[in-house]
Amino acid sequence: MKATATQPEVLISEVGPRDGLQSVKAVMPTADKFVWIDALVAAGLREIEVCSFVPARLLPQMADAAEVVRHALTHPGVTVMALVPNLRGAEAALRAGVHKLTIPASASAAHMMANVRMTREQMIEQIRAIVRLRDEIAPGVKVEAGISTAFGCTIQGEVSDDDVVWMAGEAVAAGVDEAGLSDTTGMANPAQVRRLFNKVRAVIGEHTGAAHMHNTRGLGLANCLAAYDVGVRTFDSSLGGLGGCPYAPGASGNVVTEDLVFMFEAMGVRTGVDLEILIAARAPLKKGLPGEPVYGMTPEAGLPKGWVQPRWPA
Amino acid sequence: MKATATQPEVLISEVGPRDGLQSVKAVMPTADKFVWIDALVAAGLREIEVCSFVPARLLPQMADAAEVVRHALTHPGVTVMALVPNLRGAEAALRAGVHKLTIPASASAAHMMANVRMTREQMIEQIRAIVRLRDEIAPGVKVEAGISTAFGCTIQGEVSDDDVVWMAGEAVAAGVDEAGLSDTTGMANPAQVRRLFNKVRAVIGEHTGAAHMHNTRGLGLANCLAAYDVGVRTFDSSLGGLGGCPYAPGASGNVVTEDLVFMFEAMGVRTGVDLEILIAARAPLKKGLPGEPVYGMTPEAGLPKGWVQPRWPA
Repeated sequence: MKATATQPEVLISEVGPRDGLQSVKAVMPTADKFVWIDALVAAGLREIEVCSFVPARLLPQMADAAEVVRHALTHPGVTVMALVPNLRGAEAALRAGVHKLTIPASASAAHMMANVRMTREQMIEQIRAIVRLRDEIAPGVKVEAGISTAFGCTIQGEVSDDDVVWMAGEAVAAGVDEAGLSDTTGMANPAQVRRLFNKVRAVIGEHTGAAHMHNTRGLGLANCLAAYDVGVRTFDSSLGGLGGCPYAPGASGNVVTEDLVFMFEAMGVRTGVDLEILIAARAPLKKGLPGEPVYGMTPEAGLPKGWVQPRWPA
Repeated sequence: MKATATQPEVLISEVGPRDGLQSVKAVMPTADKFVWIDALVAAGLREIEVCSFVPARLLPQMADAAEVVRHALTHPGVTVMALVPNLRGAEAALRAGVHKLTIPASASAAHMMANVRMTREQMIEQIRAIVRLRDEIAPGVKVEAGISTAFGCTIQGEVSDDDVVWMAGEAVAAGVDEAGLSDTTGMANPAQVRRLFNKVRAVIGEHTGAAHMHNTRGLGLANCLAAYDVGVRTFDSSLGGLGGCPYAPGASGNVVTEDLVFMFEAMGVRTGVDLEILIAARAPLKKGLPGEPVYGMTPEAGLPKGWVQPRWPA
């Protein structure tokens, strides 16, 4: 443990309030979302994807997006992030005052059409329009493209490396600050993660963004390790692994934040997150979504005997 | 996928019939063990820890050890392995005709005493005696020491690297063919796995044996990846993650063979194991242990769309 380090070496980007909550049928009451987000902040998380801006008739779980953003903005030092699938969503998010937008841009043409009814070329046009709007009304806001299905697609099967690199390159050319790679379907393996991040970085360099891994086949942490090995320093994950994958009954979807933080902290890689306070943040999640399964091996097993973590926040 | 490779590049050493079955209360009937072992062999597993030779009053699950060995020996090309905690067990195993012995030798003095009521020095003496007996009555048999609690101990807490390296070195000096490192308590992290295997190899070189990882805190596969990265090529795992850890209710114990094979095969690292036949081997396991939880993310999620694996056996 590098006890003298004061700055986190990796950024854990918590996606539970967006990716998690929109994957479950139940709608978490707005007040419960506030309490849960407060608990995530208390644990030291400094980037939280708090909602998506999409029509409430499609995702009633996200109907209170603007309210949730306003609440999250009361926490100084926290990057408040929202997912937006198009210009309309981006405008709403920017008007609500988010610090960062993330746009799902599939490497798989089939997935892009199924997910947001656009061709990949149309999505690149959307990104260009979103970046223009950002420049105009909120120039300080960061824009990220999350390259979905970067490691395989449940609709079209294999996704070529070239398609992933192309999509990341186009997104950056269209003006995004970062392009990350998402294992939307839980098909990634560590060799592929290393190869693809290296290929993408060779083209977009320092615009290379987060690793967004799923645990569908149990490889979530191994894939995060692989990404870390090739220089990735931002990792998306979800408290309690919320965001169960419909293709994996009983299996968690997103990488579990608690396990990811445990892995890095045990390795001596500072996350800035206090693991005990983080585990305590499961209580408001459970309260806000009664009966919903919540995953996580580390919380179930408990911290190892003799475990000492530098406290955060100080 | 290296479709042209005919030899496995890693050896998956299945420990379910020993480590798994002795961790559950129920006793699998001998006939069911035979069917399950046959199914494991059919999947391409070429090293199986089929039992331990310990007093039946302590482990009634292993009372049929000699019979199980005799059955496993009917499969040509399979290394039949047994765990033995002492000379008496070793003699019984050698007389039964095993190909390989594994001896649990804790790096933690506290765990060694709790587990087999010996000091570490006494265990080294036992190993020496076992190797002598092997030389005398079954010179072709391999002897492995599994360095237990190599990554931390639930009794004493931290285990120093020096203790692990010392124990591995002493075991090799006492005549074992291999010394592997076991994360008995699920406390390992990838940085530690890389560091310790490198330190151990610096002392015992090609005698460095298997990585035996647990999934207690969800890091099992990440730790296997880390071990692979530093040259480990033998991995212990258990079908269905059998071997639940008492410290992790609902959490699997050993690394799940199905997920481990999926990770390596997806990476293009040949295991020699056919994943579909392997998943089918869960049926006899479940039949022999009705009601016992069986884990595995890959079997729950299913193989990815478009998955193609070179067939094995041919």
